[in-house]
Amino acid sequence: MASLSYTLKPHPFLSTSKPKLQTRKYPTKVRMSLQESGPSIAVVGVTGAVGQEFLSVLSDRDFPYRSLKLLASKRSAGKSVSFQDRTFTVQELTADSFDDVDIALFSAGGSISKQFGPIAVDKGAIVVDNSSAFRMVDGVPLVIPEVNPEAMDGIKAGKKKGALIANPNCSTIICLMAATPLHRHAKVTRMVVSTYQAASGAGAAAMHELELQTREVLEGKPPTCNIFKQQYAFNLFSHNAPVLGNGYNEEEMKMVKETRKIWNDMDVKVTATCIRVPVMRAHAESVNLQFEKPLDEDTAREIMRTAPGVVVIDDRASNHFPTPLEVSNKDDVAVGRIRQDMSQEGNHGLDIFVCGDQVRKGAALNAVQIAELLL
Amino acid sequence: MASLSYTLKPHPFLSTSKPKLQTRKYPTKVRMSLQESGPSIAVVGVTGAVGQEFLSVLSDRDFPYRSLKLLASKRSAGKSVSFQDRTFTVQELTADSFDDVDIALFSAGGSISKQFGPIAVDKGAIVVDNSSAFRMVDGVPLVIPEVNPEAMDGIKAGKKKGALIANPNCSTIICLMAATPLHRHAKVTRMVVSTYQAASGAGAAAMHELELQTREVLEGKPPTCNIFKQQYAFNLFSHNAPVLGNGYNEEEMKMVKETRKIWNDMDVKVTATCIRVPVMRAHAESVNLQFEKPLDEDTAREIMRTAPGVVVIDDRASNHFPTPLEVSNKDDVAVGRIRQDMSQEGNHGLDIFVCGDQVRKGAALNAVQIAELLL
Repeated sequence: MASLSYTLKPHPFLSTSKPKLQTRKYPTKVRMSLQESGPSIAVVGVTGAVGQEFLSVLSDRDFPYRSLKLLASKRSAGKSVSFQDRTFTVQELTADSFDDVDIALFSAGGSISKQFGPIAVDKGAIVVDNSSAFRMVDGVPLVIPEVNPEAMDGIKAGKKKGALIANPNCSTIICLMAATPLHRHAKVTRMVVSTYQAASGAGAAAMHELELQTREVLEGKPPTCNIFKQQYAFNLFSHNAPVLGNGYNEEEMKMVKETRKIWNDMDVKVTATCIRVPVMRAHAESVNLQFEKPLDEDTAREIMRTAPGVVVIDDRASNHFPTPLEVSNKDDVAVGRIRQDMSQEGNHGLDIFVCGDQVRKGAALNAVQIAELLL
Repeated sequence: MASLSYTLKPHPFLSTSKPKLQTRKYPTKVRMSLQESGPSIAVVGVTGAVGQEFLSVLSDRDFPYRSLKLLASKRSAGKSVSFQDRTFTVQELTADSFDDVDIALFSAGGSISKQFGPIAVDKGAIVVDNSSAFRMVDGVPLVIPEVNPEAMDGIKAGKKKGALIANPNCSTIICLMAATPLHRHAKVTRMVVSTYQAASGAGAAAMHELELQTREVLEGKPPTCNIFKQQYAFNLFSHNAPVLGNGYNEEEMKMVKETRKIWNDMDVKVTATCIRVPVMRAHAESVNLQFEKPLDEDTAREIMRTAPGVVVIDDRASNHFPTPLEVSNKDDVAVGRIRQDMSQEGNHGLDIFVCGDQVRKGAALNAVQIAELLL
């Protein structure tokens, strides 16, 4: 797994040399808490980018557990996963995988979630699903723990009562982590988002392809295009999700619809343009906000400074603002470039720039935080 | 000049393998037209990225000339510039450089323009200046030939009457190439722009640094940060221009102010967030438009299809839209992702995505087109 772990725990120089964000460090020994009173956990899709990150985050956060089951496709079954000082054998995901599972963390794609999610729920497991399969289903909570934990009120582990909880899209999570505190203060009426999305959102294989292509282009060779149909190295392109009849792609429509559901506000207007950039594992988003009530930039900055899971990096004098590299492998979403939008009258508009680790807060961390609310 | 010309005429695999845009090809022999009736030309800053591109574009477009003087700093003076089948010697830029010059193309930075532009004008030269030095000066035309050629009405070469004409900022040119035809049809009242800007905007040295850093990061070495203060490879960051008191950086304010001047519309509302991405020489821009009059997306697409210098790449079924790579070394600005903005009522909003070669239409080509209007 050397080359896989390379992309998941990036090379030192793919990461920042001076970590500045308030976040937990990787532990030097196992801290995930093995205890009889803890829930039994299953991780579905454990060999993927997010699956691997589930393990890191569970460990980092001392998540209590009675047992841990690592599930993947038949192709990966039997593989050993070295997880700090223990070795686990990956088991094939089947309909019988969820006997005696309290919490199942799914990240194996929508079709696997659709097939096995309901089975797990029937067996009494609470499924925290990272796919888009159930996000917009009525009655399925769509949760960012810092934003709308109340949506999953009453759902608890250990009751042998199954349930589905959906993890939002990575771009939606990262955007709303910064926008929600402002929304609560001044009510966002309209939001125009342009994204700068990393390779990781398309999985570990896409991260490998970006690295491979970059080497190839620098050597003057034609770039290998397996995951994406066009050159990604030293290029960028409209998000590879299918484009719908209205001209938006599915990624953009997730931002539109999930924002409404998470904020429980069917009136909020959102438009998004989602673009993939040649960055490894953290997304950036340029967000233009329109508010019902006036909100000046200093107040906005103070609101975000005290928001949980958000760090403000907004040093105009030294031109230091959030970058994908600086938030890579970090828990917090970073926000900067906070300024009054001069294209809107009065104090009714702001421009902000947000960065967040796509694999971590955009996926695995958010799901594990949901699981923590189940305890 | 091997490694410099590498970045200016990119490696085949840094360019697209299948050129799709309608544009002129590089000639196989000199076509720039040496003729006694042509103007005498000076190129100031000829060793830079844009300076080199001036020569390519002059040649590609058979620009007539009586003489050609290549000027640069003392450091570069004496260097030979191999320009197709002739060799020129770079001369040091001095106050005497502009005797008998009809048209001077400047791209050597704002301070050189401020110092030598007025001297050239006094000597009777018409200066087409690629820096920001004179763009917002009253009486200095700021021209995109496809957009506002009338701003330079009456200024002609060969009259021994000096004048200054400013070439707009690259991001402004690329944005307005697509937005202006729509503006003329339905009047843009507000524009929200997020940019994805290439290394070339910071010059040839920045392109070299991006390539060098990328090699270093892939080899596990610390990245060399001479031009930019932070890692650029596999990263992105807020544009390196100084940030002003209102929180906008100078690049963003150029888009705001230059749009007003070029459109001769002091009421148009513009906000911009300018970001550098690890791409070599073409910019991309996500542009959200608000119109006074209704404009549906099909009409908008047809308007842009017939706009000079614009090509529409908007194939939803095959997810084929403009990319920086596809427009690199091309004259045309490409626009796609044309769709009704669902966050605005009625047909009063559109989202579009624009890509253009920063060195070419964003700088050298636009300046040479201005020079053509002088003939």
